Amino acid sequence: MAGDDRRTVSVVGLGPMGTALAGAFLENGHPTTVWNRTASKAGDLVARGATHAATVSDAVSASTLVVVCVSVNEIVRKLLSSLDDDLSGKAIVNLTSGTPEEARETAVWAAEHGADYLDGAIMANPRHIGQLETMLLYSGSPVVFEAHEPTLSLLGGATHVGTDPGLASLFDAALGGLAWSTWSSFLHGAALVGTEDVKAMAFAPIAAQWLAAVAGIMADYARQVDDGHYPGDEETLEINAAAMDHLINASRAQGIGVDLPNFLKALTERAIAAGHGSDSFASVIEAIRTPSA
Amino acid sequence: MAGDDRRTVSVVGLGPMGTALAGAFLENGHPTTVWNRTASKAGDLVARGATHAATVSDAVSASTLVVVCVSVNEIVRKLLSSLDDDLSGKAIVNLTSGTPEEARETAVWAAEHGADYLDGAIMANPRHIGQLETMLLYSGSPVVFEAHEPTLSLLGGATHVGTDPGLASLFDAALGGLAWSTWSSFLHGAALVGTEDVKAMAFAPIAAQWLAAVAGIMADYARQVDDGHYPGDEETLEINAAAMDHLINASRAQGIGVDLPNFLKALTERAIAAGHGSDSFASVIEAIRTPSA
Ligand SMILES: NC(=O)c1ccc[n+]([C@@H]2O[C@H](COP(=O)([O-])OP(=O)(O)OC[C@H]3O[C@@H](n4cnc5c(N)ncnc54)[C@H](OP(=O)(O)O)[C@@H]3O)[C@@H](O)[C@H]2O)c1
Ligand SMILES: NC(=O)c1ccc[n+]([C@@H]2O[C@H](COP(=O)([O-])OP(=O)(O)OC[C@H]3O[C@@H](n4cnc5c(N)ncnc54)[C@H](OP(=O)(O)O)[C@@H]3O)[C@@H](O)[C@H]2O)c1
Repeated sequence: MAGDDRRTVSVVGLGPMGTALAGAFLENGHPTTVWNRTASKAGDLVARGATHAATVSDAVSASTLVVVCVSVNEIVRKLLSSLDDDLSGKAIVNLTSGTPEEARETAVWAAEHGADYLDGAIMANPRHIGQLETMLLYSGSPVVFEAHEPTLSLLGGATHVGTDPGLASLFDAALGGLAWSTWSSFLHGAALVGTEDVKAMAFAPIAAQWLAAVAGIMADYARQVDDGHYPGDEETLEINAAAMDHLINASRAQGIGVDLPNFLKALTERAIAAGHGSDSFASVIEAIRTPSA
Repeated sequence: MAGDDRRTVSVVGLGPMGTALAGAFLENGHPTTVWNRTASKAGDLVARGATHAATVSDAVSASTLVVVCVSVNEIVRKLLSSLDDDLSGKAIVNLTSGTPEEARETAVWAAEHGADYLDGAIMANPRHIGQLETMLLYSGSPVVFEAHEPTLSLLGGATHVGTDPGLASLFDAALGGLAWSTWSSFLHGAALVGTEDVKAMAFAPIAAQWLAAVAGIMADYARQVDDGHYPGDEETLEINAAAMDHLINASRAQGIGVDLPNFLKALTERAIAAGHGSDSFASVIEAIRTPSA
């Protein structure tokens, strides 16, 4: 019963995230087999219809598609090393967070054992698993991705970011930076307007609307980056640097820290020093690409 | 004819922005009087139906609503000083970029001359003027804002951010920081995935989708900031700091700069040192509020 078999899924690792993943499969009527070092954590899922496997090997035997989500990749490798040498016909989808190198190593291991392999990054918290707008990134063979996309899509929006299995982790790191940086500057702004008794919750909707415009310009910058050409028709680094002084001065005048605006100004000045004063803000990528002393 | 008179608008300053502002009023059928130091720049607008005033004073006499948009506030004050002592019945809307202090000073000057005053910040380029999604911020008397909101809304979405006339400039600075910081981290991410030959234009849509999620969490953080309480139920500074190491290491491994992730890590470490290791990322605001040595 190949058709049925394909719908069976195994989940290895039942921390908060693995539990959410298994829950999403179950909720969508998939026969789901689960394994966890601490077996008791499978209790709720078993009550909801999951099958509990006694060993990782049993869990892998039960399904074609095996989702692994434990704390770190060191544990992934340890658990996988207990498996049969021949894993042909299996697809291992590793949703454990890690580095691109770890993903590539595990992909090589999987290939040596005849298994298909995808690496993934979950850009959400457990409670968002199963929602369409939740972002999960996958990398590895596009054929393997397409084969399992319908099932993986039950966890949240599934985006394939490239053939190199390290890419999902690399995107994960890049998007992490985007989140921390955006939040830091939101918090800086909230601190700034907060000095005049504006509530952060009054600032937030304006910041969110503004971020939509910022994201629109991001797409223009992406084109400029790919072209290697940063036309400063509407704004230049020189103009931006001057406006950054407004932010530095305002922050100082209101008595809050100036680390973030100082950092932005220094980065911009580095790009200006490299000859981009009349280019758009996208030219800052040239400074970012060049490690500073 | 008070009804007619109210619809008349004057625009002082016809750089790229003032020209766009006057153009939006004209396009919506408003009788528009314009003044610019270099009179020749009024030519196109006059051809489209604008009236050219010979002096700033003539421009102010022509309308109840006077929009001023010149390079800097020093020029605004210089131009206004040429006016009659009694400006009662006039509303001056200053869309020149500047500092909160400058806005407050000009507001005091306007009050001394009996004029209503709003300060504004244009969060867009001239070509976006007249579009609904364009963001213009205003601060000053809410009554004055409401009286002129229908006309000001022709320039783009009009948001009143508070009674203190300095607030539009303060929001301008805060939102500038949000833009530069978000773009810098987008460019860092594009540089990072670019080392593996991923195009910036392939990264951009994923980054944009991710930013929507990031903005959603921003609203949660705003509530935490207003509560002064940062529950780390889903993510803590300790976990974030560890993930930042992934970004630092990946950036280094791919041979790009590490200034941005290092900055984010240092900021986070400062909040951890202040006792927020088990709090959410929103607690970083405590480090931002405290100027570092
Ligand atoms: N939670 C989130 O918000 C979130 C978001 C995005 C990505 N992720 C990633 O998802 C992965 C799982 O995270 P999580 O939140 O579920 O919790 P976690 O604490 O990172 O991982 C817990 C899982 O790892 C297992 N584990 C740890 N050491 C083990 C060992 N020596 N041998 C066997 N199993 C071991 C645990 O088994 P026991 O139950 O037996 O301890 C449990 O199944 C991580 O890589 C995390 O970075 C999590
Ligand atoms: N352009 C944008 O993308 C943008 C975006 C947001 C905000 N803003 C703000 O909008 C304001 C206007 O900007 P802009 O782009 O139109 O160009 P601008 O170059 O900043 O300002 C040009 C205007 O200032 C006038 N001006 C300069 N010095 C003067 C003086 N000594 N006496 C009288 N008038 C003088 C110019 O008159 P002449 O024509 O006679 O030189 C012209 O009307 C600025 O505060 C800017 O920061 C601009």
